[in-house]
Amino acid sequence: MTTTTVKRIHNFGAGPAALPLPVLEQVQAELVDYAGSGMSVLEMSHRSKPFEAIIQRAEADLRALLGLGSEHAVLFLQGGASLQFSMLPMNLRPAGASADYVLTGHWSKAAFREAQKGGRARVAGSSEATAFDRIPEPGELDLDPEAAYLHFTSNNTIYGTQWQIDPEPPTGVTLVCDASSDALSRPVDVARYGMIYAGAQKNLGPAGVTLVVVRKELLERVPGGLATMLDYRLQAENKSLHNTPPTFSIYVVGLVLRWLLATGGLAGAAQRNEEKAGLLYRAIDDSGGFYRGHAQKESRSRMNVTFRLPSEELEAAFLKEAQAASLDGLKGHRSVGGLRASIYNACPLESVAALASFMGEFRRRRG
Amino acid sequence: MTTTTVKRIHNFGAGPAALPLPVLEQVQAELVDYAGSGMSVLEMSHRSKPFEAIIQRAEADLRALLGLGSEHAVLFLQGGASLQFSMLPMNLRPAGASADYVLTGHWSKAAFREAQKGGRARVAGSSEATAFDRIPEPGELDLDPEAAYLHFTSNNTIYGTQWQIDPEPPTGVTLVCDASSDALSRPVDVARYGMIYAGAQKNLGPAGVTLVVVRKELLERVPGGLATMLDYRLQAENKSLHNTPPTFSIYVVGLVLRWLLATGGLAGAAQRNEEKAGLLYRAIDDSGGFYRGHAQKESRSRMNVTFRLPSEELEAAFLKEAQAASLDGLKGHRSVGGLRASIYNACPLESVAALASFMGEFRRRRG
Repeated sequence: MTTTTVKRIHNFGAGPAALPLPVLEQVQAELVDYAGSGMSVLEMSHRSKPFEAIIQRAEADLRALLGLGSEHAVLFLQGGASLQFSMLPMNLRPAGASADYVLTGHWSKAAFREAQKGGRARVAGSSEATAFDRIPEPGELDLDPEAAYLHFTSNNTIYGTQWQIDPEPPTGVTLVCDASSDALSRPVDVARYGMIYAGAQKNLGPAGVTLVVVRKELLERVPGGLATMLDYRLQAENKSLHNTPPTFSIYVVGLVLRWLLATGGLAGAAQRNEEKAGLLYRAIDDSGGFYRGHAQKESRSRMNVTFRLPSEELEAAFLKEAQAASLDGLKGHRSVGGLRASIYNACPLESVAALASFMGEFRRRRG
Repeated sequence: MTTTTVKRIHNFGAGPAALPLPVLEQVQAELVDYAGSGMSVLEMSHRSKPFEAIIQRAEADLRALLGLGSEHAVLFLQGGASLQFSMLPMNLRPAGASADYVLTGHWSKAAFREAQKGGRARVAGSSEATAFDRIPEPGELDLDPEAAYLHFTSNNTIYGTQWQIDPEPPTGVTLVCDASSDALSRPVDVARYGMIYAGAQKNLGPAGVTLVVVRKELLERVPGGLATMLDYRLQAENKSLHNTPPTFSIYVVGLVLRWLLATGGLAGAAQRNEEKAGLLYRAIDDSGGFYRGHAQKESRSRMNVTFRLPSEELEAAFLKEAQAASLDGLKGHRSVGGLRASIYNACPLESVAALASFMGEFRRRRG
């Protein structure tokens, strides 16, 4: 199969987002006949031996990347992080208990809103007063020592902020992290977490599958009578195969995990992500104020770089010329405006270098 | 791209199941660069123009196939039919009301079990006494004239039965159909239904997306305070784009819908499905009792043909030799035993002819 004539764009989309080209080429090569099975993964029974091997390999590779032991269950679910916003309190907040939420952007607010349904939830900190331009300092947090859990969003796609050090919950309070936009982008101490979850479509693979890593002992909290599909304990007991899982999305996630292992694991990813983010933040900081970052420096994200230009006219011109230079997906979210470059694990250094170079060149022409 | 050396098997799996080869070849051809966009559909923002065109075209083609008017909303959701088992009563059964369920197999029982949570549900008919080998007669149904809805499963994958004529609900009672295993396999009078839903992975496309067609007026029943992702009204208002939908699965479903339109629509599908099922049922009926169908004749499915052989030894031999002849996925569900050939829309006539021929040849050798 030749791929030399295939057009590829620099994809800075916030999600679904760029996937590693070797992964796409493998998916393409085995699309009609997977590993000599005579069928596509798209057509394959979730109870078949080839698919069992796919999902078991994906789980094993995820465990290897994160250093997960047997105390954590790994679930492949559907519905995105948004469904987890509801499943989390349904499953892990006992009747009468309250849960703490740190508000650092649109998605943590959405998680908090869902948690206000059917039980008690509390704001343990917020940076909304300054347009979510930063992560609250540890001393600013007001933590409930009786909370069922403390929830935070490790990276905020829209605002371009990221926790540099995780919040420290009071003794006995479970830490829960929505890592949808920075999962597997850097090493992480999984022992600190009761649960980590992430929609796949930013750092892990295509849309349609959500990873949930949860300490098995927490599953004892799951109340009876939940809808079967919303019950973490039943999903764990059935190894995500109670009903047909999103087989093809799991297969592609598996290939991405293997690619991560083959390229240095989480330490390798973190190094590449530091280098990529560094290129763009230098382009901002060295621009003499032409580019202004939205996030305060100490809260800057390595995944989403948000910045403004001196005027909306210049921003529109930047977007248009960038598009013409095959730099795609740079329009900022409407709630922040300006530009946003999403540079997740699979966004190659060459794309980021091309953008940094374009930023310098545009500033020299228009600054 | 050459596909001449690609191995293809006869896929009789119950789901995920065979997809049309032209669809797979198109997915393969545009996997790395979709329509000159420079990216894969797997990497594409759900807010991008190319994906908007994909989902709008899929909805338009579904509406054309079913003859849907503006009174119905079309939703592309996640979680399979199993999540619909819970969402249906949450959304369309008002507080205090009861819902009627006809039990014709494993999945209708699962739907009933979920409906017993959080409200009242009632058995309006059942063929469990005879191992679900038939669809109840109209006169056997005990229908509640006050029911919020009457739920039935149009085709029963495990048992190989199918409703030939839909149940007739009492005046004012909404008819709801789980059509997961025969959606778009024959023309249907959509005006009769309040809601039709189907997991995609049998007749519509790959796993990971669930189609819901619901009369908009029913959305007024949706109570406040539901989890956002479980709320039909919110999903309809957001045109299935409240959060990131399963973009790639929707894209493949769209290609399958286009293939259906190009091959004669639902009338064409019904004709092919009649012909395919006829081949296998003749192989059973003309076998002098060597093959015995599980389903009673008047309830036979055109999608799943279930049958036994004179002994479990012969069944094991049949399976083994069939596999060697590239006839895959024929093992019956453990609750029925024996063999099952799933011959959904995309299972080609040649595959069914090969199986019918093998059945005749095996009987002559071993009968």
